[in-house]
Amino acid sequence: MGMTMTQKILASHAGLDSVVAGQLIEANLDMVLGNDVTSPVAINEMNKFGKKSVFDKTRISLVMDHFTPNKDIQSAENCKQVRTFAKEFGITHYFDVGNMGIEHALLPEQGIVTCGDCIIGADSHTCTYGALGAFSTGVGSTDMAAGMVTGKAWFKVPSAIKVVITGKKHGYISGKDVILHLIGEIGVDGALYKSLEFTGDGIKELSMDDRLCISNMAIECGAKNGIFPVDDITLEYVKGRSEREYKVFEADADAEYERTITIDLSTLKSTVAFPHLPENTKTFDEIDRIDIDQVVIGSCTNGRMEDMRVAAEILKGKKVADGVRVIVIPATQTIYLNCVKEGLVEAFIEAGAIVSTPTCGPCLGGHMGILAAGERAVSTSNRNFVGRMGHTKSEIYLASPAVAAASAIKGYIADPETL
Amino acid sequence: MGMTMTQKILASHAGLDSVVAGQLIEANLDMVLGNDVTSPVAINEMNKFGKKSVFDKTRISLVMDHFTPNKDIQSAENCKQVRTFAKEFGITHYFDVGNMGIEHALLPEQGIVTCGDCIIGADSHTCTYGALGAFSTGVGSTDMAAGMVTGKAWFKVPSAIKVVITGKKHGYISGKDVILHLIGEIGVDGALYKSLEFTGDGIKELSMDDRLCISNMAIECGAKNGIFPVDDITLEYVKGRSEREYKVFEADADAEYERTITIDLSTLKSTVAFPHLPENTKTFDEIDRIDIDQVVIGSCTNGRMEDMRVAAEILKGKKVADGVRVIVIPATQTIYLNCVKEGLVEAFIEAGAIVSTPTCGPCLGGHMGILAAGERAVSTSNRNFVGRMGHTKSEIYLASPAVAAASAIKGYIADPETL
Repeated sequence: MGMTMTQKILASHAGLDSVVAGQLIEANLDMVLGNDVTSPVAINEMNKFGKKSVFDKTRISLVMDHFTPNKDIQSAENCKQVRTFAKEFGITHYFDVGNMGIEHALLPEQGIVTCGDCIIGADSHTCTYGALGAFSTGVGSTDMAAGMVTGKAWFKVPSAIKVVITGKKHGYISGKDVILHLIGEIGVDGALYKSLEFTGDGIKELSMDDRLCISNMAIECGAKNGIFPVDDITLEYVKGRSEREYKVFEADADAEYERTITIDLSTLKSTVAFPHLPENTKTFDEIDRIDIDQVVIGSCTNGRMEDMRVAAEILKGKKVADGVRVIVIPATQTIYLNCVKEGLVEAFIEAGAIVSTPTCGPCLGGHMGILAAGERAVSTSNRNFVGRMGHTKSEIYLASPAVAAASAIKGYIADPETL
Repeated sequence: MGMTMTQKILASHAGLDSVVAGQLIEANLDMVLGNDVTSPVAINEMNKFGKKSVFDKTRISLVMDHFTPNKDIQSAENCKQVRTFAKEFGITHYFDVGNMGIEHALLPEQGIVTCGDCIIGADSHTCTYGALGAFSTGVGSTDMAAGMVTGKAWFKVPSAIKVVITGKKHGYISGKDVILHLIGEIGVDGALYKSLEFTGDGIKELSMDDRLCISNMAIECGAKNGIFPVDDITLEYVKGRSEREYKVFEADADAEYERTITIDLSTLKSTVAFPHLPENTKTFDEIDRIDIDQVVIGSCTNGRMEDMRVAAEILKGKKVADGVRVIVIPATQTIYLNCVKEGLVEAFIEAGAIVSTPTCGPCLGGHMGILAAGERAVSTSNRNFVGRMGHTKSEIYLASPAVAAASAIKGYIADPETL
């Protein structure tokens, strides 16, 4: 029986000819990731066991992104602990205020993760790098600690769901609509511990930024990972960027999938996930007027260059609606700089939006845009759980940057096609 | 006996021909200011007394700047309360995320305060507007509440210290060095409840941004206010900007001053206030190498266009030192936009600094750059009290934007003249 793309990568990293779904394996890791929330816990675990070395100081990435620039004394102390650790162990990929970005935007951008990699990260959205044709998944801080010391992690080999993308993108449809639609179809537990393997003629329609957004939200339907085949778009992206040799894996023709789901881009509509789950999706024919207080455009899901461009295109020359706070957060310093150079920051500010330095910030209720009771936000981030962005009586509507920008102008959740 | 400039303004606003130091008066207010920290307290006071009206909805400014974009649920609830109040009472000068700036940079910039005004604000640095030849001073939230309802406030007429500025500015000397030097001379209680009245041939050397910085820190030596005469520089600044008629007051030739202090710009040196008081000033001939962890360039003291320009000039084409977090915060959306247009943001980012959207943020230990134990920051803000910017075991060194930028490059407190 053939293997899925995910299974091929896992077998290779476990030194096995083949693996089957359900098998427990120990795999070698190409990269171990932590942030300012999870790394301190992992470092404490290492200390508890008296571990005084890491497996490879070039294969650990520590990104201070959640509460930076530091929100409070606690977050400052957490970052200080990680900074001290990084210095002591000579960690080469330590990122702090100044060279920082949101981890899942930063690592692909900087070529720190690449095709064929096996990656764990102590952050649930580590699955983002599946867009590059890598196996990557979120783990707890204890697994991160073990990974930093041994360079290995155990996995139960996942079974898979095949997601066939067909048709052509149109209008403002983006990767965000694809993944919201999919989560709406199968539910937040629709892919529990399974791989989402994206395939089909339609994937050539999806830019790398689309794919990174889609893989990022694989976890929102419970998937272990969400992976794309390596094609010309992938190779174009990693060329001159990847700091290591990359390896291309392909699913076997006779790989087994538990289920096949087809998404036709040509008939896909702008999709919004209503409170309080990403599966509560609606399209604009199902949405009445819902007034909003805040718009957030950014996050590891949708804070990349294409996201910024489409939002700026819609906001340019317009004004945000009275009473709506519009917070734009380019995901990395490089993206921020490019937004300045391309005139996007100017367009945002002139429209009455504000542009923050890179941070996870409001997405996780961290800082820089927390909601009061009764407030509603449209956000391009990935989770709309109760209280995720502030008060438990606030509401989050997940949408694409185009929908978010259109809503910013209208003051209610708005279809960019009807502007 | 003649009156000082401050006394003239107060007499005029009290409807009196003359006043003397120590006299209790009730003055009519041109503007009452509050922010997201103090306004909720004032609104609660109004509610407590059942007050359902304000004296003039165009003469109240509410600026959401300290913890915005909202840091946490509490700050979100505070802003929501003020927003609701502003809507209910039709307050015309309500500023929130999107059109916001740090209050003491925003009000002069937008022409909301002007020459000859009598202004109170529930923020100690309300004294900033003295730069425009206005009487303005900080009050508590209860006085703000009374001011919003009645349009009046009582004052004890202050006596005055005359500060004679002579000579020519040179090198990187700026308003910040003038005021730090003065506070170093007279101490943090050197002007308790007195007016600082700036005068002398040297004031024509001081730009409006210099003056706003100097008046801003008048409170740091205990002064009730710090005021500049209205000259061509003032008139140039308020022309086409002031939303109201302005009035020019001049000190009488025979006004009485308790003391006269002379500051010669031509011999003034770059000055740094060491922890933990603004009076602990040193010049570089007295400073050994002091390594730093963070640099903050911004605040109501030094977040204006000239501050940004001098910092960018020094940082452009350079790199910030390893391990130093450099946080640049333009004080208003307009300043931020101009920084983008003039290429300053590009220079900051390329140097490895980050640029935040306007907020008081780190200056008051609010958010966006809080210090851990043992960390040291050079900051262009106005206070270096114990724990002001985070942990009680952190240290703040107050300096000009030029010194801050030079220190960012060197990694220790550095004289810009020696770069």
